[in-house]
Amino acid sequence: MRATTIHAPRDIRLSEVATPTITAPTDAVVKVTAGCICGSDLWPYRGENDVEAGATIGHECVGVVEEVGSEVRSFRPGDFVIVPFCHCDNTCEHCRAGVQSACRQQGFTASGQAEYALVTQADGSMVKTDGMPDASLVPSLLALSDVMATGWHAAVAAGVREGGTAVVVGDGAVGLCGVLAASQLGAERVIAMSRHEPRQEIARRFGATDVVAARGEEGEAAVAELTGGVGADAVLECVGTDGAMRTAFAVARPGSTVGFVGVPHGVELPLRRMFGKNIGLAGGMAPVRRYLPDLLERVVSGAIDPGLVFDLTLPLDDVAEGYRAMDERRAIKVLLEP
Amino acid sequence: MRATTIHAPRDIRLSEVATPTITAPTDAVVKVTAGCICGSDLWPYRGENDVEAGATIGHECVGVVEEVGSEVRSFRPGDFVIVPFCHCDNTCEHCRAGVQSACRQQGFTASGQAEYALVTQADGSMVKTDGMPDASLVPSLLALSDVMATGWHAAVAAGVREGGTAVVVGDGAVGLCGVLAASQLGAERVIAMSRHEPRQEIARRFGATDVVAARGEEGEAAVAELTGGVGADAVLECVGTDGAMRTAFAVARPGSTVGFVGVPHGVELPLRRMFGKNIGLAGGMAPVRRYLPDLLERVVSGAIDPGLVFDLTLPLDDVAEGYRAMDERRAIKVLLEP
Repeated sequence: MRATTIHAPRDIRLSEVATPTITAPTDAVVKVTAGCICGSDLWPYRGENDVEAGATIGHECVGVVEEVGSEVRSFRPGDFVIVPFCHCDNTCEHCRAGVQSACRQQGFTASGQAEYALVTQADGSMVKTDGMPDASLVPSLLALSDVMATGWHAAVAAGVREGGTAVVVGDGAVGLCGVLAASQLGAERVIAMSRHEPRQEIARRFGATDVVAARGEEGEAAVAELTGGVGADAVLECVGTDGAMRTAFAVARPGSTVGFVGVPHGVELPLRRMFGKNIGLAGGMAPVRRYLPDLLERVVSGAIDPGLVFDLTLPLDDVAEGYRAMDERRAIKVLLEP
Repeated sequence: MRATTIHAPRDIRLSEVATPTITAPTDAVVKVTAGCICGSDLWPYRGENDVEAGATIGHECVGVVEEVGSEVRSFRPGDFVIVPFCHCDNTCEHCRAGVQSACRQQGFTASGQAEYALVTQADGSMVKTDGMPDASLVPSLLALSDVMATGWHAAVAAGVREGGTAVVVGDGAVGLCGVLAASQLGAERVIAMSRHEPRQEIARRFGATDVVAARGEEGEAAVAELTGGVGADAVLECVGTDGAMRTAFAVARPGSTVGFVGVPHGVELPLRRMFGKNIGLAGGMAPVRRYLPDLLERVVSGAIDPGLVFDLTLPLDDVAEGYRAMDERRAIKVLLEP
């Protein structure tokens, strides 16, 4: 099959690789109808994570079940499914505690930017739609495989509550989905920190009541002013860099929680402030499966349209251009059609 | 008055200093009937915090109100009061959110190991007993000024819940109070990590169901075994060192929270594990005033007796010996009688 592979920093290729096959009775193979590029794919692309030369890359996709293992009960060929980036049996003690991303039988989608993807623990991991979805819904369904669930997790981890004020640090696809999540979860005021006009516009469509374009101390001062000097009731850190984390803690009010979902890179936590002001940190790799049924319902009912984060659609053949566009911030998020 | 002063690492003296006086209308002066030495006093004692030569030291005490400022409404001379180590107006937005330790008018007890202590924001900070307490209750009341409330905060921050498993890292007075708190908050299993037999005994009296004497990886393995390989539902980190924090995160189950109350010294958080396993960090400087009314009731009713952590009582004159005894771990916590 054709699949995206990475060979070195900035060396993305569409290659011919072996099509995944069922090896465990709990596996499924999904024919990808839409995949996409994640902000976290840019870490290896930029050489900030190790690269295994020739490895497939891409962990987000939706598609149609092609084949299932002998123990898969809930899916059959032809089902349209959302594939969470992390797979889980949804029955172990960690799954039952709502941390499906730490499942005892954890797996990951390894070829989301390809023609086919293998899903381990298919019954526990995937969620199917009621029949084939309208093409217009596909971007929003695709967003559920990672970014929307991840933004939602940031909001839940940060303890967003009805009537409160939430600040979202980061205007990538996850940050924008975090704005949408905070708004859906009832925050009265959602402050998006974003410098980029097209992203600010999506943030507003997703429910941001205020946008702070300034960064660093200036941005922190702007949030302080917007919150009457008190700070935010909940802060969503959706980047993973040290600067973003510092801003998150700087704008969080005493006693609040920073919900973090950006894979941390070079982060040094401000422990003194955390201790002195009782500001907690919660979150991590999103347990996508936990949120999927609820999020699917919200997409199908039209309550949310996270697919708006896709501002560039390319044929899979042009995946390398997709990476360039995201790296240069010409695109927020790229949808790939195999 | 006679007050404990610190002049350099390991140089503790009883000195003659000016008796505190009312300078703000919200102040009160308390005649100390019992003070004590805190584990955190050992940081400057051991030279791990800066020392301001000649400064008074000691932030925990109970006593009798000597004098109040013109705006103090809730107290009058003769009242027996518990003095939280951190003072607050108990009305600002941070206090109302339950973070009295981050009060806009924050203050600290500066001469708890002395004859008199000044309390700023007296109305907001102090809690009085119903008449003069029996002498037998004084150690437990004194524990409420810091360690018991701090242990309680660790348990609350860690999210201890009825029926769950809690691990307490640290067998100092705060750790032992954390055991008591976890037990009171309904944890079915409370695992105390302690190597020292006299402390293990108090831990058991405070409700520990299991004691793990091993430390480091061996101790972590022992907790893993006790929790069926799952990890603890809540972990109380009551030390503040890097080793204690690592152990806390190692024994915490995915999705749980480490409640931390030990002033962090040289701590590097295991961010990769926190992210991958969704283990949060919450807590910080305890909002003593928030818990005081409840804790006072528990002490008076006999439900808790945190005063058991005091295993050495000395006249204030012997305060230097008290520091030595705690530094050498000959005493868990020293009560000082002026």
